[in-house]
Amino acid sequence: MSYTPPLERMRFVIEQVLDAPASWRAMPDFAEVDADLAREVLEQAGRFAQDVIAPLNGPADLQGCTWQSGGAVKTPDGFPAAWRAFVEGGWPALPCAPEDGGQGLPQLLNAALFEMLVGANHAWTMYPGLLHGACEAIGHHAVPALRERYLPKVVSGEWLATMNLTEPQAGSDLGLSRTRCKPVDAAAPVVNGAAVTVTGQKIFISGGDQDMTDNIVHLVLARLPGAPDGTKGLTLVLVPKILPDGRRNGAWCDGIEKKMGIKGSATAQMRFEQAEGWILGEPNAGLAAMFLMMNSARLHVGMQGLGHLEAATRIASAYAQERLQLRAPSRPAGSDAAAARGPDPIAWHPAMRRILLDLQARTEGARVIAYWTALLLDEAEHHPDAALRAQRHDLVALLTPVVKAFLTHLGHHGANEALGVLGGHGYVHDWGIEQHVRDSRVALIYEGTNEIQAIDLLMRKVLDRPGRLALLLEVLRDEAATLDTQAETAADGDPAGLARWAALLRDEAATLERATATLQRERAARPDLPFLVADDYLHALGHTLLAWAWARLLRASLGDQDAARRQRLQALCAHGRDWLLPASRWRWTRIESGVPELAWPGL
Amino acid sequence: MSYTPPLERMRFVIEQVLDAPASWRAMPDFAEVDADLAREVLEQAGRFAQDVIAPLNGPADLQGCTWQSGGAVKTPDGFPAAWRAFVEGGWPALPCAPEDGGQGLPQLLNAALFEMLVGANHAWTMYPGLLHGACEAIGHHAVPALRERYLPKVVSGEWLATMNLTEPQAGSDLGLSRTRCKPVDAAAPVVNGAAVTVTGQKIFISGGDQDMTDNIVHLVLARLPGAPDGTKGLTLVLVPKILPDGRRNGAWCDGIEKKMGIKGSATAQMRFEQAEGWILGEPNAGLAAMFLMMNSARLHVGMQGLGHLEAATRIASAYAQERLQLRAPSRPAGSDAAAARGPDPIAWHPAMRRILLDLQARTEGARVIAYWTALLLDEAEHHPDAALRAQRHDLVALLTPVVKAFLTHLGHHGANEALGVLGGHGYVHDWGIEQHVRDSRVALIYEGTNEIQAIDLLMRKVLDRPGRLALLLEVLRDEAATLDTQAETAADGDPAGLARWAALLRDEAATLERATATLQRERAARPDLPFLVADDYLHALGHTLLAWAWARLLRASLGDQDAARRQRLQALCAHGRDWLLPASRWRWTRIESGVPELAWPGL
Repeated sequence: MSYTPPLERMRFVIEQVLDAPASWRAMPDFAEVDADLAREVLEQAGRFAQDVIAPLNGPADLQGCTWQSGGAVKTPDGFPAAWRAFVEGGWPALPCAPEDGGQGLPQLLNAALFEMLVGANHAWTMYPGLLHGACEAIGHHAVPALRERYLPKVVSGEWLATMNLTEPQAGSDLGLSRTRCKPVDAAAPVVNGAAVTVTGQKIFISGGDQDMTDNIVHLVLARLPGAPDGTKGLTLVLVPKILPDGRRNGAWCDGIEKKMGIKGSATAQMRFEQAEGWILGEPNAGLAAMFLMMNSARLHVGMQGLGHLEAATRIASAYAQERLQLRAPSRPAGSDAAAARGPDPIAWHPAMRRILLDLQARTEGARVIAYWTALLLDEAEHHPDAALRAQRHDLVALLTPVVKAFLTHLGHHGANEALGVLGGHGYVHDWGIEQHVRDSRVALIYEGTNEIQAIDLLMRKVLDRPGRLALLLEVLRDEAATLDTQAETAADGDPAGLARWAALLRDEAATLERATATLQRERAARPDLPFLVADDYLHALGHTLLAWAWARLLRASLGDQDAARRQRLQALCAHGRDWLLPASRWRWTRIESGVPELAWPGL
Repeated sequence: MSYTPPLERMRFVIEQVLDAPASWRAMPDFAEVDADLAREVLEQAGRFAQDVIAPLNGPADLQGCTWQSGGAVKTPDGFPAAWRAFVEGGWPALPCAPEDGGQGLPQLLNAALFEMLVGANHAWTMYPGLLHGACEAIGHHAVPALRERYLPKVVSGEWLATMNLTEPQAGSDLGLSRTRCKPVDAAAPVVNGAAVTVTGQKIFISGGDQDMTDNIVHLVLARLPGAPDGTKGLTLVLVPKILPDGRRNGAWCDGIEKKMGIKGSATAQMRFEQAEGWILGEPNAGLAAMFLMMNSARLHVGMQGLGHLEAATRIASAYAQERLQLRAPSRPAGSDAAAARGPDPIAWHPAMRRILLDLQARTEGARVIAYWTALLLDEAEHHPDAALRAQRHDLVALLTPVVKAFLTHLGHHGANEALGVLGGHGYVHDWGIEQHVRDSRVALIYEGTNEIQAIDLLMRKVLDRPGRLALLLEVLRDEAATLDTQAETAADGDPAGLARWAALLRDEAATLERATATLQRERAARPDLPFLVADDYLHALGHTLLAWAWARLLRASLGDQDAARRQRLQALCAHGRDWLLPASRWRWTRIESGVPELAWPGL
């Protein structure tokens, strides 16, 4: 099926809403990045997504991966060739550091790249999905010899990498992992870089085997002899599929899963049998090494939500304009009187129009939230001012679980609503929309389930670090102040209603602050309380962020010379405010008005 | 995968909540139906669902149907044999009239049968899904010769039937249908029973071809020469696959759809080429003939939602009790202190517990709504009192779009939430839950999309027939009065909080009445208004019905000698009241506090 990259909408957010080029200018690492370069990168990325991987998406879903006896996995037709083209284009290295062979481009551009890749072909994009994390893990933790041997190959994309965390009994609870590793030389000190053998079983390993690269670099969580129980006894080990001397290592794919979606992605059951490898980072500090890359990995998963939301919304919008059924109860001003005798486009029917407006308002708002977070991440890593870096780091830590969970929620459920616009045609394969629903579902689960994101947000990022939320409150109130200033100085009397938006954002900030204080106060007597409403809190905060994003979009639209775009954005912002925000308010109300008990039923 | 029929919970609703046996006693047609017979029927049906078709469900999803050149469809392995067993068991004829060869059992029992069949295997259940509708259509409309030739075969299940409505350009808008029919004898009068030939293309025809029965009876909407445009020019035609003289008729299956789910159900593209058939009912009155069977067909689709909700909830509940991950922030009273050192069942984690309670409260409430509607349908068709029949008919007409849309919504989205309880395991095929998500999605679309149900409810059933809603308001207020009486006469001081439930139901009724009056008043100046909020209205009303259902369950539980069941039901009713109802209130608020405008964006 076809995919159209939303280049113009992406650029509008990058340049007009966030003014990312101004932020890049303040960071010496990005001295050579400007709006023109960003446009060029996105255009080329869009072409790759549209021309190379989008045409493979539907067929790969039907064909799936094949597990061959002996354990070799065959990916769908065209996947290996598309990978070679990706490598030749230099795409794997986009955000990696130049000293490691990367292009050193901002995370923001990498986020936009992955929005398009996932919108075009989620399954294919699973293969490079963990590259950046693997680069970070190897780059930060490997001893020089290991780093030299593996990092350039992974940065260039010549070899792909995997993350081996989950085991049959250890999913969200990695502390239950049983895979063992044993030093090869019992007499040598067990330190970073030490040679070990790994034995155990891992499941749900994306790309655990594939036919796209000659070698695969497995990063495996395993337990050294005598290691403590739980998560504090896990060591990260680098285990290549092919050893440096050319031998086949004992890392075997015993089968692949039959899944709801992303069928072109091989989800492997891995068996490590005396597999040779080397410790990556400090012994027993494997989980911390993994979590180092969690911010970018979770942001990445959030981009998957946005990619599906954008792509599914575009399919539904196009269909709704072309499909003629029944007469609408009213017609848009200026619609053709002659055509008015026949059936109308279903986009004119209020039930469909409302869904389309919901989807489009969410898509535009979600993109602002995601790109803003990516820009903050760039500043957290590259800004010359250490205090600003620290502040940005805190804000990113707060926003990351929201981006991961809220955007994947919007992406999956939005794709499902978009399917409904196509009716029976949405349920069949041809239009590609049911595949978006299936493919997007996994993003709510992996990299920490959305329920775990909600607990991470409320417990670790908000309640246990009271200062951190203040950063976000300040963002909301600063925007309100800017809106007010613009409303007061507007020559034409604030027709866009900026002052009303300012009041709304102040109200959102006050509610957020009050609800958080309520939870902070009541949790002492009721330790369960935050766990009961973590999901409500995350979704309510997501809507607060959408309100902020719509205000930013509205402000950016004011000076826009493109009248059609200006009108569209203003309509979508008003729609979000009037239709979507009120439907989420009950979550704050629940938190503030007393959270009911949760029963222990005989299940 | 396995399926466990919820016999005990079904019986509780039939006997304790609704006291259906008392209603049956009042209807001479059901003189022989009592609680024992009902139990016997349900037990046998449950055994069929569990033993015969549930084991085929997962494999059939992977295998799908095969279209063979020449147009013959092969259904999944085991489907034809299961059909023969169904026919031999006399199940197809369950609700059909005894004079037509049926068993004349209540719709309520047929509804319960289909809840189990769909929970066990939705795809297989598509084949008999339209049987009862076809029986009604042929029984009511066919001339005697036609009736004699086809009705017994369809009632017995020897032949299956299809409904041919949709065409590529005519989905929700059947008035756009182009399939033509032409009298064979141009000189003969064009009347009911006249021989015609049919030519045209139909799509999305469930069971359009299959290898389960020797013949297929297609009911086709087509247009006679000179017929009016639109829906008033459609004629229903009976077109057998095999003609009475043994010739193959010109009804060809040109292909089957690749779908998101119900893959074992053949969704056919049909080409009628000079196919021979006979007019069924009055010429140009085909749509009315179709709509005659819509109430039971839509109730049937609602049962599909319930079947998926029940089955998915059961899988998730079982998984959550067995799966041990992480320590829960608190433990149920009396839990084993020794086990408390290790990880806890995920059912103890608040985020999971809340999902499970949501799902179980909705399942129990939805079953009461569905069975009650089925019982009302039985009374509408079989009660000796004509006035009561008319009243029941009106109430069923009001409830039907809610049962269809609201229950399928709960079923699909509930299955999706249940998937989340299983995490990564939910995303793979083995547990069967992702299949429930995919299979259940279609029920929101077919037999009139849920958006069309919402418009049907609000426009045709409520606003255009002001008296009809009063019937439901009376039900709510009667229940409130009963609750109050029981609360007052309770010897133990109303510990179950019946008086609070009474107040809640009165409040629901008042809100429903007020919101409806608001819409009635404002639609004159704003004709679009009901279309903008029809979906909100349906879902809000669905929750009002859930509130009523929980009150009924609670009342029925009071005298229950089974303490575990009593406590479970009381916990679920309280959960629904405290957690679910407040999350839906904003829909009424929107309707009452002024519905915003809906923009016409440049999509």
